Amino acid sequence: MDRNMPTNALEHSTIPTLKWVDEADGHLVLVDQTLLPGELRWLECRDVATVREAICVLRVRGAPAIGIAAAYGVCLGLQGYHAHDDEQFFSRLEQVIEDLGSSRPTAVNLSWALARMRRRALELRGGSSLREIREALLAEARAIHEEDRRMCRQIGAHGAALLADGQGVLTHCNAGGLATADYGTALALFFAAQEAGKRLHVYVDETRPLLQGARLTAWELCQRGIDATLICDSMAAQVMREGRVQAVVTGADRIAANGDTANKIGTYGVAVLAAAHDIPFYVAAPTSTFDLSIPDGDHIPIEQRDPREVTHGFGRATAPEGIKVYNPAFDVTPARLIKAIICEHGVIEPVTAERIAREVGGRK
Amino acid sequence: MDRNMPTNALEHSTIPTLKWVDEADGHLVLVDQTLLPGELRWLECRDVATVREAICVLRVRGAPAIGIAAAYGVCLGLQGYHAHDDEQFFSRLEQVIEDLGSSRPTAVNLSWALARMRRRALELRGGSSLREIREALLAEARAIHEEDRRMCRQIGAHGAALLADGQGVLTHCNAGGLATADYGTALALFFAAQEAGKRLHVYVDETRPLLQGARLTAWELCQRGIDATLICDSMAAQVMREGRVQAVVTGADRIAANGDTANKIGTYGVAVLAAAHDIPFYVAAPTSTFDLSIPDGDHIPIEQRDPREVTHGFGRATAPEGIKVYNPAFDVTPARLIKAIICEHGVIEPVTAERIAREVGGRK
Repeated sequence: MDRNMPTNALEHSTIPTLKWVDEADGHLVLVDQTLLPGELRWLECRDVATVREAICVLRVRGAPAIGIAAAYGVCLGLQGYHAHDDEQFFSRLEQVIEDLGSSRPTAVNLSWALARMRRRALELRGGSSLREIREALLAEARAIHEEDRRMCRQIGAHGAALLADGQGVLTHCNAGGLATADYGTALALFFAAQEAGKRLHVYVDETRPLLQGARLTAWELCQRGIDATLICDSMAAQVMREGRVQAVVTGADRIAANGDTANKIGTYGVAVLAAAHDIPFYVAAPTSTFDLSIPDGDHIPIEQRDPREVTHGFGRATAPEGIKVYNPAFDVTPARLIKAIICEHGVIEPVTAERIAREVGGRK
Repeated sequence: MDRNMPTNALEHSTIPTLKWVDEADGHLVLVDQTLLPGELRWLECRDVATVREAICVLRVRGAPAIGIAAAYGVCLGLQGYHAHDDEQFFSRLEQVIEDLGSSRPTAVNLSWALARMRRRALELRGGSSLREIREALLAEARAIHEEDRRMCRQIGAHGAALLADGQGVLTHCNAGGLATADYGTALALFFAAQEAGKRLHVYVDETRPLLQGARLTAWELCQRGIDATLICDSMAAQVMREGRVQAVVTGADRIAANGDTANKIGTYGVAVLAAAHDIPFYVAAPTSTFDLSIPDGDHIPIEQRDPREVTHGFGRATAPEGIKVYNPAFDVTPARLIKAIICEHGVIEPVTAERIAREVGGRK
């Protein structure tokens, strides 16, 4: 338990998912999200391996949060590393970036943050001392962190306008404070709407196999006193049919140039169901989640995860031994099913390559 | 463990879900399905309360199996009951029927079987001794059991013709041997197709919250050597999108006169997804599952179950304390989404009130 962190985050309306602690060389502290909601434990990360492992096993998860963790991870990887020369330093930097970048394949914020760290270092190469570069990289990681915090507020403000008082909304997985530096992307809409005096009722897909909805989103909404109901993923269609929700909002892990959106497995199904029930389906994500280098969703790599997440997800076997399992961690929702994407600059609607290029391309 | 039962059902291709044992007065033995696949344990039922509890907590489940268990339950309720007269006997019969009938509200096979038992008793009232009526009721329960066995084979034969060699098929929940007297309704199609030399690949929705797909269907398919892959319910859309399945087959708990079909929660969502991917959605169910007394699905009562099935389904809490939960056990798939219903008499296609009246109305 780190002394700088609150001993009981339950008392805090916003849970500090990640924090850079300046003591000595400095280190990263993050909430171990695999233990929530049963236990709130902080993990100290003092090296790249710890950050990498935390990303791999989802101790830290959510596209924006992964990007921030990776940026600080770069700082940890260079900390205390005594390079003989510039070349050795930059070789080390590349190694660290590769280690962190290969931790998870789908969320583009990871490679976006790492590319930004590399760019900053290269800008200073030759003209600055290694110590100065290290300091500049920490400043860059802090900037990514701080920008993400602002991004959450901006997305919340833009998106809350789309939700009306008294509406039911459905969300899948966790795109909340735990997935970002502040109060989330999808959940930012709900929090901002609440701050604006709107009462929403949020239906939370539990989000198998790892239950980010049940464990994290339900927890965050309870924390903030937002009226929420947990459902199994298989109940979303029925909840829609009964007229209980008037909007669906999710986050995103990578958005292609045409608007096709990779997000937690199950999102695509929810989008199809929303379309079948004439319910608008919104995606909330910062511009760092856009990958304009790929034309469409077919080019987004989809992470396949351990079958045991499905068969042993809750501490005991829930399926016969030896059964084959298909466990894609993400799916891709085609742009045609997305009514609008809310980013920190505003609302992208309709979701077309042209609109995305205009809103994101020029500013990124 | 009953001596008449196999000590290891793993050795048997068909698992005897229920069995009437003739020793002494006779009693019902059934597989405790809540313990599968980890443990195969037989439950001896010697009174109505045990049967009722078994139905309530899903030790025995699946519409046809519930009907059979309830029929035998009536026999147990009259066994050893010393009625002074005819009136007392029939009053007891009504009490037993009410006890069993209120155990679960959605599956109509339960009330169908109980009504059939009552009818048989009333036929003999006055003209037969109470002992003779008891014997006739046991014979009736055995007939229901035996007819269900034949029904499975007939559904399998009719339905297998709809599936082609090499196809991928998806199923939700468990409509297999464990849900019936023999080898199931939906799964009967797969078993019969296999017997006909067709190789299928079955995708099994795990079926939250109680995981009947993961625990029971995956187990049955493994037992019989059918190529099967377990997925989370939220992955069905992606599996369809990837072209992995060419048909969906589920069972049913109650089918209204117009073909609207109540089945395990999540079925409706799967049907919507199948329609969106141009995949035929089939329902396999015996005529005892039709309830021609109700015009459509709006009249089917939907059981709401304990929130803890969602929040504590795996032996430990997976959601924050106090979170609201919505836990409907069933949903209703409208007839327009069902390509055909396969019953023991044949294939009902298209699914219309007229076709159902013709196929089911006259014969039931």
